[in-house]
This record gives sequence, structure tokens and C-alpha cells, in this order.
Amino acid sequence: MSELSVNHLLGIKYLNKKDITLIFETADHFKEVINRSIKKVPTLRDTTIANIFFENSTRTRLSFELAEKRLSADVVNFSAGQSSVKKGETLIDTVNNILSMKVDLVVMRHPNPGAGIFLSKHVKAAIVNAGDGAHEHPTQALLDSYSIREKLGDVSGKNIVIVGDILHSRVALSNIFALKLQGANVKVCGPKTLIPKHIESLGVSVETNLRKALEWCDVANMLRVQHERMDISYFPSIREYTQQFGVNKQLLDSLDKEIVIMHPGPINRGVEITSDVADSDQSIILHQVENGVAIRMAVLYLLASKIQ
Amino acid sequence: MSELSVNHLLGIKYLNKKDITLIFETADHFKEVINRSIKKVPTLRDTTIANIFFENSTRTRLSFELAEKRLSADVVNFSAGQSSVKKGETLIDTVNNILSMKVDLVVMRHPNPGAGIFLSKHVKAAIVNAGDGAHEHPTQALLDSYSIREKLGDVSGKNIVIVGDILHSRVALSNIFALKLQGANVKVCGPKTLIPKHIESLGVSVETNLRKALEWCDVANMLRVQHERMDISYFPSIREYTQQFGVNKQLLDSLDKEIVIMHPGPINRGVEITSDVADSDQSIILHQVENGVAIRMAVLYLLASKIQ
Amino acid sequence: MSELSVNHLLGIKYLNKKDITLIFETADHFKEVINRSIKKVPTLRDTTIANIFFENSTRTRLSFELAEKRLSADVVNFSAGQSSVKKGETLIDTVNNILSMKVDLVVMRHPNPGAGIFLSKHVKAAIVNAGDGAHEHPTQALLDSYSIREKLGDVSGKNIVIVGDILHSRVALSNIFALKLQGANVKVCGPKTLIPKHIESLGVSVETNLRKALEWCDVANMLRVQHERMDISYFPSIREYTQQFGVNKQLLDSLDKEIVIMHPGPINRGVEITSDVADSDQSIILHQVENGVAIRMAVLYLLASKIQ
Repeated sequence: MSELSVNHLLGIKYLNKKDITLIFETADHFKEVINRSIKKVPTLRDTTIANIFFENSTRTRLSFELAEKRLSADVVNFSAGQSSVKKGETLIDTVNNILSMKVDLVVMRHPNPGAGIFLSKHVKAAIVNAGDGAHEHPTQALLDSYSIREKLGDVSGKNIVIVGDILHSRVALSNIFALKLQGANVKVCGPKTLIPKHIESLGVSVETNLRKALEWCDVANMLRVQHERMDISYFPSIREYTQQFGVNKQLLDSLDKEIVIMHPGPINRGVEITSDVADSDQSIILHQVENGVAIRMAVLYLLASKIQ
Repeated sequence: MSELSVNHLLGIKYLNKKDITLIFETADHFKEVINRSIKKVPTLRDTTIANIFFENSTRTRLSFELAEKRLSADVVNFSAGQSSVKKGETLIDTVNNILSMKVDLVVMRHPNPGAGIFLSKHVKAAIVNAGDGAHEHPTQALLDSYSIREKLGDVSGKNIVIVGDILHSRVALSNIFALKLQGANVKVCGPKTLIPKHIESLGVSVETNLRKALEWCDVANMLRVQHERMDISYFPSIREYTQQFGVNKQLLDSLDKEIVIMHPGPINRGVEITSDVADSDQSIILHQVENGVAIRMAVLYLLASKIQ
Repeated sequence: MSELSVNHLLGIKYLNKKDITLIFETADHFKEVINRSIKKVPTLRDTTIANIFFENSTRTRLSFELAEKRLSADVVNFSAGQSSVKKGETLIDTVNNILSMKVDLVVMRHPNPGAGIFLSKHVKAAIVNAGDGAHEHPTQALLDSYSIREKLGDVSGKNIVIVGDILHSRVALSNIFALKLQGANVKVCGPKTLIPKHIESLGVSVETNLRKALEWCDVANMLRVQHERMDISYFPSIREYTQQFGVNKQLLDSLDKEIVIMHPGPINRGVEITSDVADSDQSIILHQVENGVAIRMAVLYLLASKIQ
């Protein structure tokens, strides 16, 4: 039987194309099960999963928890504000405690890039990175690609533009890795100050004019503006941002084709996209959320099957 | 088999008398099961319930969670401070996410009146309103009536007074609907500034003199003083409030009959009621809490049986 | 079959030596089960346990929750900041609510010494004290002694020093009771202002010189410096504390024997102990964490078996 080439999901960077295909096919299976209204499979009945969130998260944590419960795993939740990371125990001590408590899988979100990698080197449990600072957010990128594949049949050869604050976005980075691995053409679009230098080395091109980017693409993935993560000097006013990089219905309708709109959520309605765009037929935002549970079931299942 | 006339429990306003009878008879059954020390029934084994609390709550959330676990449902909890409602994603996006995650039942508390109604119009899941601003708190009213029926045999024809801040209380409004539907006589009693104008249109009368109200009633339901929900201009000092609208043992003993004392909790001891009243034989406060689990089991069970 | 002499675990003070032996032997059993990779036993399948934490806790709560889930109990969590204790409902009302909700076991942490004792007098449920102010933290002391027994074969006759803020430490007090009950020799070591007067009445001696204490002991249990729990007048600066009462590798190596290092966590690395000490072979800190789950399984199992 096929299995993943990795023992942890730390980033898309560490996966190969076969891994992605395997995850997608496994997710297809789980999605079909869910759609037949089978709410729970006994697959991970004897598996304990710890969800360890050092940053606030509602939708990602909820999506993982639903995936875990649908697999019949035992779930323990551990949430700590980012502040406790600063003042509190070190990551190595968290690591050690997890090790000692003998959980099988750890889903971790942490403000520090590389936190999951560090963890995986020190504990026996399989690690799923649920976001590590501005580094990677692999399950988000997987569900994004899965949703494109579902909508357009394939990711390979498609033109995808990622719009917004590329510099601080783990969603952007993981998406770039995943899309390139699958043979998509990728552009990034946003204010110059929010695009990393040398990003072309990842095989993507830069387009600072939104209209041009949209005219080129099949899919636009609109990143969330994260006020809290930005240094004021990088960033134009929200008003300016929306004028230059926000998508509204009028703009979409003025294109000569119908492109697909994605957003990782939560949406700032009226900033990155207007409500009529978010709720239109071109938007697959809800499918992204729905697919998130199936993708996470697949990832957890495949990693658990490699334990022992 | 009987079933509810509604697909959601959004407010008592939307129920008919038969619904209430059905809920009470179902709760009788679950209460009997619990009293036989059967901790868990497999009734909702394949049902996923999301508890979504946009306001702090301990006892209501705990009561729902116990009810859900006794029914063997899968439970996911989502708590967000009221502040995140203000700054964060809109309710429609929460709605969409829930929709996409395919949970069967949603128990929601939200600071905005009508939040549950809005939710029910946009998602497939059955919605239970666990309190929406100053609007309704239907399971509280059901457990209150159920506790009166348990103590006095029937609600019909009984004289009930609700004492306190009627203006801001969802407990008061849901109780008024429930009690009137069951044929009780209802008075409200409190400072004039805390009684809504035109409340008589709901079929209740107003009494601003506590002693007179108590002399008339069979049951006094003492609302919690919620400092945080009050505009200073409405409200006398706590000291004045207690002098005019607090119940102590001396006052109770001076009546020529023994009335039943209720409180939705948490009690401000020494404000609405003194400790000797809260802990007396006339108080059924603990029965209310106990009945809350059975009532919530009944509501969840009856709504779940209407799904599909 | 043997059973505990108590119906609650409120403090080590209420246990006898036989109780401790029984808990340890039961923990041996559960530890063996866990080590055979059996993740779950059906022992408490029909038992509902409420974890009620009025103080922040991550590791203790997580450890209890893992223990409960491995025993297949139903778990409800209730967390409230310490602030809500001050402003909110009284403990008696919490008590009453728990009583009414018919849970079987309550694990409670509370800032007030004696909170668990109070609770046990008023509810039917079995109570496990998970820390009550500066009073007791019995499961911590049990896992500490269990870890010493595992490392050194026996606790009886061993020389143990507890280092740090003895005055404010429930870990210290519970350890003193547990160690004395098992026939160990106990010293406490720390700044004079942080050692309770008359502590000798508990059968322990005081040593303010750390080197002398270490030269005497087989085991040093290094307490966490809890900045938040200290009055400034009691306490030297952190720097001074570390100079006088912190343990580093150099100090350990200068002793003429190899002593065992313990810490209840979370560690302030570089304050109580340096990283090289925490991670050395002399440290059994990780074993303490691992043993915590087995000890808590044993305690919950033994208390549950006394219900009814």
C-alpha cells in the first residue's frame, strides 16, 4: 500500500508530488464517506491526538478537531496565548512534556517559524504543523489545491495568482510550494513592500497591478489582511489597500472570463473582497472550508498509519 | 410518533403548547434514565454538535455539554469573547463555516438578538438558541417551567412573578412566553426604569411593590442583577435595589403562605436573595440546574430526530 | 480487594501509608498497560468527570485529561480565571451546580486553601484536589514519590531536600506529608523569609545553605519560582535567588556523589536549574511527567471504585 514519504507534515517543502496525490486520493475517500452521512469512522480509535495552539485560532482548530473526532481519535486540547510563549516555559519543555505523556500525534500552531521542525526532532509523536509563524501552513495549502482540483479538474498548467501580503503569509508560502510542485503557473500580487525580495527564486513572478494579474489568472487566492502582523511602515492604509488590491464584483465582471475566487478566511469583508464577490458563484470559499476537514482526516490517517 | 412543530429551538415564541408538552415528557424519560444511574444513552452516537459561545458562559455551556455527552454525541466547542464578534468575522461567515463543516446541531450563544434566527435561515444544521442578547433563552424558560410543574404539579393556573431587571433579561422574556402558553398568570416586578413599556401587551401585569407581588404569587423567579448589562441611568444603587426588590427570610416568613423561590443563577447572594432563602426548602434552585440537563437532552434529541 | 481509606483525595494529610502503597501498585499496573501501547481501557466507561480549574493550568489539566480519557471516562472541562472567583458566584453555588448535574468525580483547582475540603462536604461526587492555594497538591506529591521509588527502589530511608519557596508552595507541603509518611528524611532549603516558621513541627529540618543540603541528600526537588505568588518583601532578586539557590552542572559535579534532580515544572531555565542540569541523566523530570498520567489514572480508578 502507498504511504507518505515523510513521518511528519511540517511543510509542503518536504513533500513530493506522489505525497500530494496520495493525500488527495485519501481525502476523496473521506469526503465520499462524509457525504454519505457517515459521521464517524473507527479508523483512529486507539490514537491520542493533542492539539497544541500557541496562537489563537478558531477555524483551523475546529477543523482539525472535527477531522479527529470523525476518525474516532481521542482528543486533548491545549491552548495558550502567544504571551505565555514569551514569558512561559520553553518549547523544549513543551516538547518534553508531550513526549512524556505519550500522545501519538501532535497538531501544533506556534508563532515561531520552524517550531514544528524543532518539535519533530525531539519527540516520537508524529507532528502536523498547523501554522508556524510566517513560515508554512501546509494543510491550508493542501486544501486550497484540493479545492482547485475539484473545481477545475486539475492544478497542473493552471494560472494562479496569490494576492495580498505575501511577505508575512505562511498561507502564501505553502501555496507556492504546493502549486509549483503540481505544475501550476504562479504569480504573486500585492504592495511592493509586502513582497519578499528574491521571491522569483521560488519560480513565481511578481505582478503589482491587480487588473493585469486577474486578466492572466484562472484562480485568484485573496489573502487576509492581518493588521496585527504588520509593521506600519510596510503598509498603505486599509483604504488604499482596498482601492489597489481589493476585488469587487464590478472588477470581476469587467474581465473577459470567469475566474475562481478563493480566500483562506476569516474574510475582512469590504477589504480584500466585497461581500458580493465572497458570496458569488465564482467563490469557492465554502468548499475550501468543507474540504479542510477531509484533507485533515487524510493527513492524520496517513501519518498515523506510519506510526509503529 | 409525535415530533416538534419546529426544526430549530430559536425561542419560546415559535413553539406551541404541544411542543412544550412533548419536550417535558421526553425530559421526564431522560430524567428517569439519569436517576437510574445510567450515565449514557447511545441515542445521538452519530451526531456532531458544535457549541458556539460568543459570550462567556459557564453553567449553560456545561449543562449543554453534559446533555450532549449523555446522549453520546460528538461535541466540538468553540468559544469566542464578545470582543472578537466586534472586530472579527461577520456572523454570515461563521454561518458559512459551520455549514461547510457539516455539523448536525449548533448550540449558539450570541450577544446580538436574533443571531440564532439569522443562522437558521442560512445553514442546514438544527439550531438551538442558548441566549441571544436580551431576546430569548428558551432552554432556561423550559427548565424553569419544568421545575414548576415538578414542584406544583402543573403550570396552568399558577401565579408567577418575575422579579428584577425585566428590560434587559432574555430569561424574563422567554419565561413570559412559556408561562403564558401554558396558562399561568404572570406579573413582573422591578424598578420602573427596568420594565419595558407596553409589556402588558404580552398578557402580563406590572407590580412595582415586591411585598404585594409576593402576596399574590405561588412562585417568585428572582432574576440575577447583571451589573455589566446595565446603563447607570436605569439603575438604583445595589443597596437600594436590595432594599426594594431583594428577598430575605424575614420577608418570606411574614407572608401567609409558602411560595416557591427560583433563580436562574449565578446568584448574587445578599443582592437578589439572601443565603438563607437560596438554601431554604422553599428554593428549587438546585432542581432547576438538575432539570436543565434533562431538558437539554430532550431538546437535542427531538431536534436531531427531525434531521433527514 | 483493597481499597482506599478515603472517599476523596483532598490532601496527602488524609492518607495512610497503605493508601499510598495501593495507589503506587495500581499506577504500576496502568503504567505497564500504557507501555504495552494499549491506549485505552474501558474501566470508567460510564463515569462522568468534571475538571474544574479556577486557576490557569496547562500541564496538570492536560495530565488529568489524558488519564481520564485513557480510562474511557466522559470528560467535561470548566475553566474560569481567578478573577471570576473574586467577582463571581460563591464556591457553594459552584458546589450546588455540580451536585445538580450529577457528575461522578470532580477534579478541582482553586486559589483558596481548603476549597476541595469544602466541596467534599457538600457534594456526593468524589473530589480530587488538583491544587488549592498554598495548601496541598496531592497528585503532584504522589507522582514525585512514585518517581523516587522508581529511580531508587524505595522512598523509605532516603534523604530528600526540597529547595525554594517553601512558604507559598503546595507542592512542598504535600511532598513533606508524603515523604514523611513513607519514612524518608526531609530537609527544606531556601531563603529564610520563604520558609514557614515552626516547619520543624512537621518533622523536617531547615538548611539555608544549598551546598550543605545537596551534600546531605539523595534527591533534590527544585521548586519553581513563582513570581506572581510572591510578595516583594519576601523575596530577593531573581539574580540573588539563582546565585544562592539555583543548581548548575558545576555545582552538581563538585559533589562527591550523584544526586537525583526533580522539578514539578514548568521550569524557569537558568533560575532554579540550568538547562544542562534539567536535561542531564541525573534529572528525572520527564519521568515525573510520564508518571503523572499513571498516578492520576490510579487515583481516579480507586476513587471511582468506591462510588456506590
